[in-house]
Amino acid sequence: MDLNLIKEIAISSPEKIVMLVLDGLGGLPDPKTGKTELETARIPHLDTIAKHGICSMADPIAPGITPGSGPGHLALFGYDPIANLVGRGALEAVGIDIEFGPDDMTARGNFCTVDDKGIITDRRAGRISTEKCTELCKLLDGIKVNGVDIKTYPVREHRFVVVFSGKNLHTELTESDPSQTGLAPLEVKAEATIARQTAPIINEFIAKAKAVLAHHHPANMILLRGFAKKPKLPTMQEIYKLNPLAIAVYPMYRGLARLIGMQVADAGTTLEDEIKTLKDNYNKYDFFFFHVKWTDTAGEDGAFDRKVKILEQVDAALPAITSLKPDVLVVTGDHSTPAVYGGHSWHTVPVVICGQFCRPDAVKEFSEPAFLAGGLGRIHSTDIMPLALANARKLTKFGA
Amino acid sequence: MDLNLIKEIAISSPEKIVMLVLDGLGGLPDPKTGKTELETARIPHLDTIAKHGICSMADPIAPGITPGSGPGHLALFGYDPIANLVGRGALEAVGIDIEFGPDDMTARGNFCTVDDKGIITDRRAGRISTEKCTELCKLLDGIKVNGVDIKTYPVREHRFVVVFSGKNLHTELTESDPSQTGLAPLEVKAEATIARQTAPIINEFIAKAKAVLAHHHPANMILLRGFAKKPKLPTMQEIYKLNPLAIAVYPMYRGLARLIGMQVADAGTTLEDEIKTLKDNYNKYDFFFFHVKWTDTAGEDGAFDRKVKILEQVDAALPAITSLKPDVLVVTGDHSTPAVYGGHSWHTVPVVICGQFCRPDAVKEFSEPAFLAGGLGRIHSTDIMPLALANARKLTKFGA
Repeated sequence: MDLNLIKEIAISSPEKIVMLVLDGLGGLPDPKTGKTELETARIPHLDTIAKHGICSMADPIAPGITPGSGPGHLALFGYDPIANLVGRGALEAVGIDIEFGPDDMTARGNFCTVDDKGIITDRRAGRISTEKCTELCKLLDGIKVNGVDIKTYPVREHRFVVVFSGKNLHTELTESDPSQTGLAPLEVKAEATIARQTAPIINEFIAKAKAVLAHHHPANMILLRGFAKKPKLPTMQEIYKLNPLAIAVYPMYRGLARLIGMQVADAGTTLEDEIKTLKDNYNKYDFFFFHVKWTDTAGEDGAFDRKVKILEQVDAALPAITSLKPDVLVVTGDHSTPAVYGGHSWHTVPVVICGQFCRPDAVKEFSEPAFLAGGLGRIHSTDIMPLALANARKLTKFGA
Repeated sequence: MDLNLIKEIAISSPEKIVMLVLDGLGGLPDPKTGKTELETARIPHLDTIAKHGICSMADPIAPGITPGSGPGHLALFGYDPIANLVGRGALEAVGIDIEFGPDDMTARGNFCTVDDKGIITDRRAGRISTEKCTELCKLLDGIKVNGVDIKTYPVREHRFVVVFSGKNLHTELTESDPSQTGLAPLEVKAEATIARQTAPIINEFIAKAKAVLAHHHPANMILLRGFAKKPKLPTMQEIYKLNPLAIAVYPMYRGLARLIGMQVADAGTTLEDEIKTLKDNYNKYDFFFFHVKWTDTAGEDGAFDRKVKILEQVDAALPAITSLKPDVLVVTGDHSTPAVYGGHSWHTVPVVICGQFCRPDAVKEFSEPAFLAGGLGRIHSTDIMPLALANARKLTKFGA
């Protein structure tokens, strides 16, 4: 949907929308039982919401396309995820609240372990502590290349962010991370003529970092990927006239929310913390992005039973959300992460929209097969925001 | 669908298409019974058509978007309703058959009541009679501002149309109607630099109108909105090679039909008149837009039972249409107007296409829940025309 059109018809209203995003929600059947994670879990509250709401299996991007977390979430917030691709580096940088300008270039970094021959033996340097990561980042901070200022920021464990500050930096670059062990880090190459001056700067930085880290085994090398500048996105206030709050435990999701103008709560580290955050802030906002990460982590780890358990935990916490009586409740995911697949996947994602003016459908339980008969048919995830806004009476009529 | 592609493959054929548009057709369940207007009504003939045809719940514009009557109908006729937005003024003007040129600017006007302080106390001037409106329009006709000719035309009760004839008039203007009582009429302002010379002309016209109307309480002021020029739309003859007739009781729908090249019948004032008009003209045309307004009016008034009754009246009249044996019969609406919502809404709209070559689906009754299982899935209303044309053998193969 054209956001300029939405912007024209969106109005502020007292109604409140809660969008509960269970990361990696959709699943696949366990071959032993023939049932997906959602079909296996005892989730009576989610079933009730499915019964009262209008359901769909939605495409986050397009059929067959497996979304990263960035595009998956941007689609949920109504932004065209293809036209508004946010690079990994920028996503990580905003996630840890780094100030950086429009000329700066960011990258996601890993400390890693290489052997004497320079072959990667551990892409995560044995998951060093965040404290260690912080120390090492300080060592790298002295490095300068060709007048380009380089600053590194610890994220968590082996993960860090690099910000390159200079003129004429271009992101059309290959990654240094080969995404597997047993290989040497790759030379960064320009993918477009315009980035031909940028690539050697990155490679020199990596070489200097290697020298600095030589005696810091297991973190004796770095891998860089996701070179990106800060994207310019219209805010949710501008487009939707919303006053939105993000409740998310993981930095990247907070960063993404911040990029589109959401206030970001200090949401603690657990589901209970997040629920408390929602309650404490419920009067102050009219849109709540409530992110649950652990469904995705379990799916990524191939942990079917754990994903089932987390779904049951979320279900048990649901009355704490519904008791706030949001005018519109959306429950969905940013993409599927089936445990039997062990990673993000292209499968459609369950979505239910619940509000006073939903036209009911025949869906009686919260599961992939049940949602196929949902009253919304097959929609795009970018349709969810307009539908949620309409149900909350936040969109006026289009045209006379 | 790209109309240029349709234009290339469309051919003239003897087959006849009747498109029966029940304005505001889709509904929502009555909380007492859990049944929508369509589910409540006894509509055996519509059920038969649903049984024989192929069904869908269609999006007039896009998920979450509530269509005005203009965009809702343009979509039914296959025109992109976003790219071809027709302003209210132009719609009203063509609806009362006013001749106006491409440079002229139109606006929809209301006579209203203001108190001594200029505060609006009634936006409709107590719904003065159409005769009174006609009289007052004549008084306003003498007004001239800066060489711009201004003519006013009565529509119905307090409603009128203004046509500003001059050079360099631009429609990027705010409205003078604050859409509520208790406020003074708003100053019209330019929303773009290009309209900076137009705004003062409008404001001076309004001031002069106020002076003229001073002693005509309750119609002692005017409100203007929907500034618009005549849109340039390709005709249905050009695109579809059709010879289309519009049968509609209300002016706006006739106006819209005329904008895209339809002949407009004198269709009387009742459903019976419309049926007779269809019969009388059946041999002379190959496409019939048959508009039933009262379903929408009932929905807007929140009159659930009345909407049910009107559906039953339409159903009873249906054999008179089917006995003409149109090659393709389409029954649908331009948008939903659920009585429990009391206005146009964003919900999908039932559509059935009935013809010799429809691939049947399992739908057995004409209702929103039943149509969810329709063989067309969820389509856009702009898909209806190509499907109707194809079923009437009016579209040739695309590509070799």
